Amino acid sequence: MTLIRNATVMTCDPQLPSLGLLERAAIRTEGPVITWIGKDLELPPELATGATIDAGGRLVTPGLVDCHTHAIFAGDRADEFAMRAAGATYLEIAAAGGGIRASTGPTRVASDEQLIALLHERLDTTRAAGTTSIEVKTGYDLTVAGELRLLRCIAAAAATSRSRVVPTLLAHLIPAERAADRDAYVRSLCTELIPEAGRARLATSVDVYCDEGAYTLAETRAILEAARAAGLAVRAHVGQFADLGGAELLAEFGGLSADHLEQVSATGITALAAAGVVAVMLPGACVQLRLPVPPVAALRAAGVRLAIGSDLNPGSSYCESLAVPMWLATTHFAMTVEEAWLGVTRHAAAALAIDAGTLTVGGPADLVLWRCTNPADVPYRYGSDLVDQVFSSRG
Amino acid sequence: MTLIRNATVMTCDPQLPSLGLLERAAIRTEGPVITWIGKDLELPPELATGATIDAGGRLVTPGLVDCHTHAIFAGDRADEFAMRAAGATYLEIAAAGGGIRASTGPTRVASDEQLIALLHERLDTTRAAGTTSIEVKTGYDLTVAGELRLLRCIAAAAATSRSRVVPTLLAHLIPAERAADRDAYVRSLCTELIPEAGRARLATSVDVYCDEGAYTLAETRAILEAARAAGLAVRAHVGQFADLGGAELLAEFGGLSADHLEQVSATGITALAAAGVVAVMLPGACVQLRLPVPPVAALRAAGVRLAIGSDLNPGSSYCESLAVPMWLATTHFAMTVEEAWLGVTRHAAAALAIDAGTLTVGGPADLVLWRCTNPADVPYRYGSDLVDQVFSSRG
Repeated sequence: MTLIRNATVMTCDPQLPSLGLLERAAIRTEGPVITWIGKDLELPPELATGATIDAGGRLVTPGLVDCHTHAIFAGDRADEFAMRAAGATYLEIAAAGGGIRASTGPTRVASDEQLIALLHERLDTTRAAGTTSIEVKTGYDLTVAGELRLLRCIAAAAATSRSRVVPTLLAHLIPAERAADRDAYVRSLCTELIPEAGRARLATSVDVYCDEGAYTLAETRAILEAARAAGLAVRAHVGQFADLGGAELLAEFGGLSADHLEQVSATGITALAAAGVVAVMLPGACVQLRLPVPPVAALRAAGVRLAIGSDLNPGSSYCESLAVPMWLATTHFAMTVEEAWLGVTRHAAAALAIDAGTLTVGGPADLVLWRCTNPADVPYRYGSDLVDQVFSSRG
Repeated sequence: MTLIRNATVMTCDPQLPSLGLLERAAIRTEGPVITWIGKDLELPPELATGATIDAGGRLVTPGLVDCHTHAIFAGDRADEFAMRAAGATYLEIAAAGGGIRASTGPTRVASDEQLIALLHERLDTTRAAGTTSIEVKTGYDLTVAGELRLLRCIAAAAATSRSRVVPTLLAHLIPAERAADRDAYVRSLCTELIPEAGRARLATSVDVYCDEGAYTLAETRAILEAARAAGLAVRAHVGQFADLGGAELLAEFGGLSADHLEQVSATGITALAAAGVVAVMLPGACVQLRLPVPPVAALRAAGVRLAIGSDLNPGSSYCESLAVPMWLATTHFAMTVEEAWLGVTRHAAAALAIDAGTLTVGGPADLVLWRCTNPADVPYRYGSDLVDQVFSSRG
């Protein structure tokens, strides 16, 4: 049981306007669910019992939802980061053993126990930063058996974590050793990997990297069809570097989210809006790779819901917190503070199709008590850890 | 006494190449000074005494030096941040009471005790993030008496802080109420404020904001002359929005640092290099205000030393840590990891003309033990707090 009184509660309740803020409010949880939310003065006396936290007006929000991470990997690419900073080219980095091989190599040779331990560490770090629900993609093995192993490791870590973990099977790219039989590789994903992931219920969705250097539009279509046949939801990395028409294709398949979107056409945006696909902004990777800013204003005007992810990954965004992405969203990406908060709560939960990211009676008791009173403080005071306490529905 | 063994010690010693890294090293301090640094195996047995920390290979660096902050202010501008994020114009924000008046108003009415307490809080937060030496500028009162009061409050906070505080008198801009007698206002700075700050030794340098909307080049010259006459070092905010020729002028006066530099000509860069002026990069404010990136490659090619500041201030960069600026420096600004580290240690100390930012025998015992082993990890793993322990020469 947790009772927090005298708080500014951001419910993100879709029945309420904007962020659904309740001033001088109380929130009570019993085990994994919220049992009461409302004005402090209206708290029934019989519920005003037990250990109570006086928030002193400070902010309580839903536990944050990070809807885009590649958090399961082994290997260390800090030196590659330094090489990139020093201006090394893609070829120079590859010659030094860098690039995705610097993750797939160590990931393939790591034991299950090692991978689970690494993921656990990252789940702990992200939860300390306020993230209580987190998507984790595979993609650093790239063999059929290895990707299934990654899904089993994610499940094992999830079973013993206080974070809610949403497992995604990622069709990341064609591994170098399969470049010569690219079609056969894609066929193995569609006829072996995806059906097995669906049958064993190891993933809830399939994500495809549809971009230059990754999967073509035709390959993406084949993978999305296989996912649908396996009963899995779909999402895609779309237009980080080039617009291949992935947004339109994903909309056709009723995808949950289209992620990155630095390059997307007006037609693609219209299609996303019509299909209710969530657009996931990944401003950390965008800044780190010095990419153009996605067309936020056009997405907003079309009525596309915006989410924000950390894109936690070893190559382009080793970020275990949503606070810096929220600052970048509200400055570099010209998103509003309201959009940034919905982007890491309700809209991120929509991108994952999970019941999270809101504070409502009967809903999960995932919440964060912050050191500040104003929702704007979290992006405004960037680089500071303003999380006071994290409460999790998973104990 | 502190003895750290089995560490990767980044000395930043100018006698050593690059960052002066010593692997498997030990460092010993006695009171405020470092008494031994070297290879662990060579530590004399008589010094291998007392409470010892086994760093397990992790990184020890100089305490960070933040050479550009506006950390003394009252008032809350989080709502203004939200308005800006929502696209409000300068005039709309001013009409809502925002802009610098939202800081000068509350700062002028705050008591000394309140201002000292606010500064103390920020010194504590920044020190927890690894900053042991920090410059603090005045500039949120803008009257002669009020700016002197801010300097006295900085001195009072400094006297009871474990951080080393470097006080700067900032000629920030002409307050709106003095716009009609601009010349008389500048004269009051030159004949009253600056001489008194010098006489009372309340500041070690004078900083001038030489830019559109702040001081003209002629006014900047007058202020720099007054500073020189008062025996104070000089620095300037130069070319954040427009290049008024401030870099050349500052070089003529032998300034310590030229800060911002989004707009600076090739002539200006050559002048800075010839005069040994440190260029202070402020990537947080640059991103937050969506400004172009300063000409880092040209500054580097000219041999200008680069420093990095948080620019902690309530308007454009409420940042109490140097970690995010280091990530932005090594990605958005295309600086190397070595430049980023020198930028928050030795070169930042040079910008302040203080003995800090290096680990050398006889030097101050300001150091940070990190959770990581590789210097690149600190910018690479952005948004995470990798500071383990901070040791201060001030107890």
